[in-house]
Amino acid sequence: MAESMQGLKRTHRCGELSVANVGETVTIMGWVQKNRNKGGLVFTDVRDRSGIIQVVCEEGTTDAAIIEKAASLRAEYVVAVVGKVERRSGAVNDKIATGEIEVIPSELRVLSESQTPPFPIEENSKTKEDIRLKYRYLDLRRPDLQRNLRMKSQVMTLTRQFFSDEGFLEVETPMLGKTTPEGARDYLVPSRIHPGSFYGLPQSPQLYKQLLMCSGVDRYIQIARCFRDEDLRADRQPEFTQIDMELSFVDVDDVIEVNEKYLKKLFKEVLDVDVQLPIQRMTWQEAMNRYGSDKPDLRFGMELKDVSDVVKDCGFAVFTGALENGGSVRGINAKGQGSMPRKKIDKLTAFVKDYGAKGLAYVALQEDGTVKSSFAKFMTDEQMDALVKAMDGEPGDLLLFAADKNKVVWDSLGALRVELAKQLELLDKNEYRFVWITEFPLLEWSEEQNRFVAMHHPFTMPMEEDIQYIESDPGRVRAKAYDIVLNGNEIGGGSVRIFQDDIQEMMFKALGFTKEQAYSQFGFLLDAFKYGVPPHAGLAYGLDRLVMLMAKQDSIRDVIAFPKIKDASCLMTEAPTPASEKQLEELSLAVKAQEETVEE
Amino acid sequence: MAESMQGLKRTHRCGELSVANVGETVTIMGWVQKNRNKGGLVFTDVRDRSGIIQVVCEEGTTDAAIIEKAASLRAEYVVAVVGKVERRSGAVNDKIATGEIEVIPSELRVLSESQTPPFPIEENSKTKEDIRLKYRYLDLRRPDLQRNLRMKSQVMTLTRQFFSDEGFLEVETPMLGKTTPEGARDYLVPSRIHPGSFYGLPQSPQLYKQLLMCSGVDRYIQIARCFRDEDLRADRQPEFTQIDMELSFVDVDDVIEVNEKYLKKLFKEVLDVDVQLPIQRMTWQEAMNRYGSDKPDLRFGMELKDVSDVVKDCGFAVFTGALENGGSVRGINAKGQGSMPRKKIDKLTAFVKDYGAKGLAYVALQEDGTVKSSFAKFMTDEQMDALVKAMDGEPGDLLLFAADKNKVVWDSLGALRVELAKQLELLDKNEYRFVWITEFPLLEWSEEQNRFVAMHHPFTMPMEEDIQYIESDPGRVRAKAYDIVLNGNEIGGGSVRIFQDDIQEMMFKALGFTKEQAYSQFGFLLDAFKYGVPPHAGLAYGLDRLVMLMAKQDSIRDVIAFPKIKDASCLMTEAPTPASEKQLEELSLAVKAQEETVEE
Repeated sequence: MAESMQGLKRTHRCGELSVANVGETVTIMGWVQKNRNKGGLVFTDVRDRSGIIQVVCEEGTTDAAIIEKAASLRAEYVVAVVGKVERRSGAVNDKIATGEIEVIPSELRVLSESQTPPFPIEENSKTKEDIRLKYRYLDLRRPDLQRNLRMKSQVMTLTRQFFSDEGFLEVETPMLGKTTPEGARDYLVPSRIHPGSFYGLPQSPQLYKQLLMCSGVDRYIQIARCFRDEDLRADRQPEFTQIDMELSFVDVDDVIEVNEKYLKKLFKEVLDVDVQLPIQRMTWQEAMNRYGSDKPDLRFGMELKDVSDVVKDCGFAVFTGALENGGSVRGINAKGQGSMPRKKIDKLTAFVKDYGAKGLAYVALQEDGTVKSSFAKFMTDEQMDALVKAMDGEPGDLLLFAADKNKVVWDSLGALRVELAKQLELLDKNEYRFVWITEFPLLEWSEEQNRFVAMHHPFTMPMEEDIQYIESDPGRVRAKAYDIVLNGNEIGGGSVRIFQDDIQEMMFKALGFTKEQAYSQFGFLLDAFKYGVPPHAGLAYGLDRLVMLMAKQDSIRDVIAFPKIKDASCLMTEAPTPASEKQLEELSLAVKAQEETVEE
Repeated sequence: MAESMQGLKRTHRCGELSVANVGETVTIMGWVQKNRNKGGLVFTDVRDRSGIIQVVCEEGTTDAAIIEKAASLRAEYVVAVVGKVERRSGAVNDKIATGEIEVIPSELRVLSESQTPPFPIEENSKTKEDIRLKYRYLDLRRPDLQRNLRMKSQVMTLTRQFFSDEGFLEVETPMLGKTTPEGARDYLVPSRIHPGSFYGLPQSPQLYKQLLMCSGVDRYIQIARCFRDEDLRADRQPEFTQIDMELSFVDVDDVIEVNEKYLKKLFKEVLDVDVQLPIQRMTWQEAMNRYGSDKPDLRFGMELKDVSDVVKDCGFAVFTGALENGGSVRGINAKGQGSMPRKKIDKLTAFVKDYGAKGLAYVALQEDGTVKSSFAKFMTDEQMDALVKAMDGEPGDLLLFAADKNKVVWDSLGALRVELAKQLELLDKNEYRFVWITEFPLLEWSEEQNRFVAMHHPFTMPMEEDIQYIESDPGRVRAKAYDIVLNGNEIGGGSVRIFQDDIQEMMFKALGFTKEQAYSQFGFLLDAFKYGVPPHAGLAYGLDRLVMLMAKQDSIRDVIAFPKIKDASCLMTEAPTPASEKQLEELSLAVKAQEETVEE
């Protein structure tokens, strides 16, 4: 069975050995990657975090007992090897860093045996994700996930060091906080000492960090765990991590400045990528007009064009109807896609329906100058020519149009633009295009709640010049809010906060809160604001998403050590699990039978 | 009301200004510490995180509007001041770093007004703690708490940097984990998607960090939030923070070595204190014998002496009875306290009763050579002389004895020793005495559960030479466990872990677990151990307690930004609070009426 490592001390990690160590006696420890028995030779690849080293036993040279033991090794056994580093007698392996050397063992111990693992420990696993998540401890042995863990650790260390050097203090804020019924759903934690009462796990440290500004902390940073009990979409986790910061006595430019410096350093040190400063800024309005998205991917063009004016008098009722309803007609030009088969266009039409569009109108410009179009019959030739011209259409192009309310048109064409870029392989994961999106609307209308809701949160400062409209035309008010977008992903966002009583009151009124409602939720913050509050602003990054992009991964699960699946459960631990009667009793809680719930 | 800071940019923090800035025009922002109007002069002390600067307006020199505004300032108003730095015309203030200079304002803005705060913002507040906690955002403005926050931030930054440099990876482990009914009480988090099921908030990342070792992470570090739903004692919080680490392919000495290096660096950089390496080591048995505690305070002597042999034939039934029941008689010598009044001795007797002792026997050695004693009448002169001699008693000393089971004697005299040191003011907060306590018992008998329980946790490795006793004499088995103790506080602890199936099985058996019980709780870890597990060991520090000692504070609440009080509630946010009907409904939970619970 298992041998002890007593008396041994590891001298090197496997991947740290090189020709510089030739002649030295070393002690390495790790997992057997593979083991080959070949003509009196036993080759054992030993793996640890740093890489792989080949251990070679040869009949006649190596002690017979060691050869026998080596020959019996199987994949994932844990071994300790004492031996001499030598230049390879056989062929050099260019694929691994230690490919020029091998270790000739004088001692070999089996520290731990292994059953056959349920899937091989190798790069780019083809094993189904749910099997890998069940055996996550094995999955994490794979080199790609090891690299991701390492990169995330590096990003966290570098982030803290950078902000510490910039005068930020790391302050821990509570996890067991106050639950607020507004906004996204809190995870609740029942209190045993106060039956019927609950803590809320934080959706972000927002209120605490503003309080820290009231306390004179001046510059705050925390890599903070956050929680949201929402139905999970592909790229969401019930718990996630924010790089969270707040600064006093600053305005938009100050926040942007220190964060640009941070991003430049981060991408240089981790990826050797040069981020050009200043990072481009774009207003929310421009981003929607040009890209149909507040997180535009700038790695490719295919911008939206507003052709409302061009088509306003045409005979195509879909277009004119949309305009009459206050909407718009916009299009994108898929260069060189004029010969896209009808079936594929139909698929794109189905695609945009997920975004609320009723359909997609197209114009396929043939190489011979003719036009295939779903709506040509409603247009005069002049109208069609004007439309093609407005879209910079050239022979071989495919023009795609949506006509609806602005929001629907933007959402549909914005998503379509990215979908086409994927299909046409226009997205280079090695290119990093940043953009700040600024001047977001302060409020957006919620059909569901039949009132304005805060686009960021209720403490976001309106732009000075728009405060006058907050009562008369709330939808027009722009906020001192900003998002940092990377390759079509919002990686961070924040705002300048309201620090004046009167503006805060206007804001609550615009949101339809009574003073009592505001106080019951945010009373301690409003109280704090009575005792001298500095102007302040902040920003938070989604750490998991940031690292996902840096690691060129497609899922945040690949950069989280122990992620949960869509139903918020953990395949490895099987959490959540039923509580015992005693646990429920202590919490003065009863679980309602499901039938009962249904009956009500 | 509030003025905007638009157009202004802070150039310095208040405390950063010095005579080097004389002649410069600067912009500072901060809180009004105090404001004095004196013979045509207005002196305003402006405070921020860095310190205080004096702003002076003089009639005739300063603009009248500014003087008027300055005169109207009240404590805790937030102001922005543009002005010229000059050498003080009046007396230099030695008490503050900027005492040689003042700022003559050319512009003054009131960014935020303040009501009169409920208590003054000053060092060493005499305000009751519950008021300070309710207004924690004001409390945190006080210089002592600001220093504590700064020190904690520095400790965290330095800790991460150190361990990163030593090859540790920071890995985040889940907060929403699996609840286990064993051990301390978990905080539960109900699942909305899985009605009746609950997550457990982690009491420590123990299982995850061992899994990370199985994954080949090799060296792991995390500053991790942990939770324990226990009745709070003075120095406990429902959530607290651990510096948590685990290492592969190591034994006790490796863990101790890297942590000694860490402590040396930490104390040097933060406090300019030199920690002498290697840190003293002491076995658990020695610590109990000499100090009656597994966390001995080595800043003073007053060691326990076992006098069982000396008194075994005396006529004092309290002593001989304890010995007959398998216990012991031990004493401490309170040097020079021979004239302690009887009343004070009675108080000490009451004190040790909290630790299970039935009483305290004393011998007061008078300066004139006579003896006052509660039990002299049961002893011959020879017996008394022998006892005094065994205790190194000299005229003027006070000898205090306890006789009972070992555990009671140790607990009582160990606590008494510290209590006397407090009363005699032997404890110097500027002295830092470290000691490693090693070779803890693996198991301890639980009267409550009528079985052996793990002293550390069920994965702690027994010492090789003691494994043979694990079935025959479990109480005798020592563990490869170690605590790091500073000035009588356990600041950290850890162990080498079991990584062999057969030993783990013996351990579970000794704990009275069936295989099913072990699997239902730790199944995923036991499964992981089937696929090649490296020898590994770890350690965790209590960050809050460590910083408390470094900051020379008496309560961990003073080093936590937003602490909870004894009933686990937050006086500032009032958390926990009742959940809404909708929230409970979504979680399929009902709160049991309190009466109902009582009736059952």
